[in-house]
Amino acid sequence: MNSPLPPLEAPTQSAMPEAMNPSPDRVYIGFDLGGTKMMAAVFDAEFNILSRRRRKTRGNEGQKAGLERIGETIDLALEEAKVTHDRLAAIGVGCPGPLDLDKGIIFDAPNLGWKNVAIREFLEKRYNSPARIANDVDAGVYGEYSFGAGKGARCVLGVFPGTGIGGGCVYEGKIIRGTKSSCMEIGHVQVLRDGPRCGCGLRGCVEGVASRLAISAAAAAAVYRGQAPKLAALVGTDLKEIRSSALAEAIKEGDTVIEEIIKDACKHIGVAVGAVIHLLSPDVIVLGGGLVEAMPKLFVGEVKDAARKNVMDTYRDTFKVVAAKLGDDATALGAAAWAVASLQPA
Amino acid sequence: MNSPLPPLEAPTQSAMPEAMNPSPDRVYIGFDLGGTKMMAAVFDAEFNILSRRRRKTRGNEGQKAGLERIGETIDLALEEAKVTHDRLAAIGVGCPGPLDLDKGIIFDAPNLGWKNVAIREFLEKRYNSPARIANDVDAGVYGEYSFGAGKGARCVLGVFPGTGIGGGCVYEGKIIRGTKSSCMEIGHVQVLRDGPRCGCGLRGCVEGVASRLAISAAAAAAVYRGQAPKLAALVGTDLKEIRSSALAEAIKEGDTVIEEIIKDACKHIGVAVGAVIHLLSPDVIVLGGGLVEAMPKLFVGEVKDAARKNVMDTYRDTFKVVAAKLGDDATALGAAAWAVASLQPA
Repeated sequence: MNSPLPPLEAPTQSAMPEAMNPSPDRVYIGFDLGGTKMMAAVFDAEFNILSRRRRKTRGNEGQKAGLERIGETIDLALEEAKVTHDRLAAIGVGCPGPLDLDKGIIFDAPNLGWKNVAIREFLEKRYNSPARIANDVDAGVYGEYSFGAGKGARCVLGVFPGTGIGGGCVYEGKIIRGTKSSCMEIGHVQVLRDGPRCGCGLRGCVEGVASRLAISAAAAAAVYRGQAPKLAALVGTDLKEIRSSALAEAIKEGDTVIEEIIKDACKHIGVAVGAVIHLLSPDVIVLGGGLVEAMPKLFVGEVKDAARKNVMDTYRDTFKVVAAKLGDDATALGAAAWAVASLQPA
Repeated sequence: MNSPLPPLEAPTQSAMPEAMNPSPDRVYIGFDLGGTKMMAAVFDAEFNILSRRRRKTRGNEGQKAGLERIGETIDLALEEAKVTHDRLAAIGVGCPGPLDLDKGIIFDAPNLGWKNVAIREFLEKRYNSPARIANDVDAGVYGEYSFGAGKGARCVLGVFPGTGIGGGCVYEGKIIRGTKSSCMEIGHVQVLRDGPRCGCGLRGCVEGVASRLAISAAAAAAVYRGQAPKLAALVGTDLKEIRSSALAEAIKEGDTVIEEIIKDACKHIGVAVGAVIHLLSPDVIVLGGGLVEAMPKLFVGEVKDAARKNVMDTYRDTFKVVAAKLGDDATALGAAAWAVASLQPA
């Protein structure tokens, strides 16, 4: 019996060569397309970084201008690394979703105001090099799996509490994905039946009670009630000012209420992580993002404790929880590595 | 760059040939090792069933006698199919867990009272044919993926409400697994914070509120309260007598309280299924087991509605919910097909 699985839809045939430039002095581009910032990085064949170029995304200037800006940013990074286009072997882009992963199209990026942007085709034509796209969080997790805190693990779950809570999973070397677009939406795992309304419209999603936004809102209320004098002195009640560093500083200075808010958030995250442990049994759970970077010990310890309390005995000692290692480079690194891995013959 | 993933632990080298008998008249054995019953089935190279042999498991007679009994049952099935041992190309066994999947060992089967049973080695020696083991639920889902209700889908989630709630997932042609043993424990996804204590020791697990056992317990209470006269007439308040068929019959005869109990259970299952949809985005969700067989329309409809209510817009129309098709053959069929697929060169 051959595998009963029908072949997946093949990526669209583009004008570009699919085979990767095998030259030993080949380079890869990793691109991180964020809502406010973009970054192009050039890597050599061993993934040493040769250059990095950051610019504002300026999504509001429209998608045509946006693609052009992406190209210019890559050009600037190549220039800085002093490499010519012909050495380019692969381009990987971490994008906000939802995406058509096979065709390399951004369906809809509300933060940029873009729809149906054929970014893969644009890059392949411009650089005569194969390109691949991935969800930005997935790319970051693939980066941590390839080079960082989840290096070489059989199954790595990444959890990134920010405005929402991003999730991604690399399972036996591959990014777990949906039929076309990405999945691993750990932020929308329900942790409180009939809990607070989440931005997605559902109730009780973990990101509705444990994202940086939810934490900051709770912290602002604590400041307003006079329970967090240190945070009050640092930033006041304006949600926009309550950044990860301010929360960390307030805890350090003695605002125990703020610490409790973080611990409560970690308890919720632990419930969602527990669900993933029961389902996928990841070996390594990587926590990342600004909040975790500001308080790695607190987050890692609390999430680990909460996850352990929320799983059956069989799974209690099967995973470790660690802080991400690659910081802002994770998505660019992971996107490039994923593009390269995707271009290897199976 | 080669894949940064280190190779998984290789299966133990056994005395048996790993290559599969390529003869066109080769046959496969599928074996379903249950807590009370065991079944051996013989399949031809196209997975047509040639014979089936069922016997009681009698786990209490010990594991040595148990292995012998498994062998005898296979012999009887081979005899019935009139095939000789030399035509055997692969043996697949669906086992209660936890298992060492690579080495083919049952670590611990509390229902049988067995520990560390090297079932793969036993079968490979006895039949001079490669053997593989899989978790019984996983094997059943692989059966439905290969030949049944989830045929050929990219990602199939199976949910089987019984004494507990079994789960399994076939993702891009492979059974999702943990590092050694299986995972996809959908029964232990938390759906009610601080909910009822589950058999596993945690609180609020979906199987604690939506398994056949939980449903039967709620039904017994309804009978006791005089709210379910039809069920009272059929079986009374003894939990052991409240089987799927009695529940279905009582609903048909007008016990609306029993129908509400089932609907509530489906709502809980829908929350757990919603979590899996957010994480893995399965295309097909297969519901199976005795309860679903007794009331397929009710279960499929209610779970589908509940799952749709518990996922974000993006995922609302990405999955279908269907009843299993293979009934009691699913595990044997799936175990045999999985063994064969595992023996194909990658």
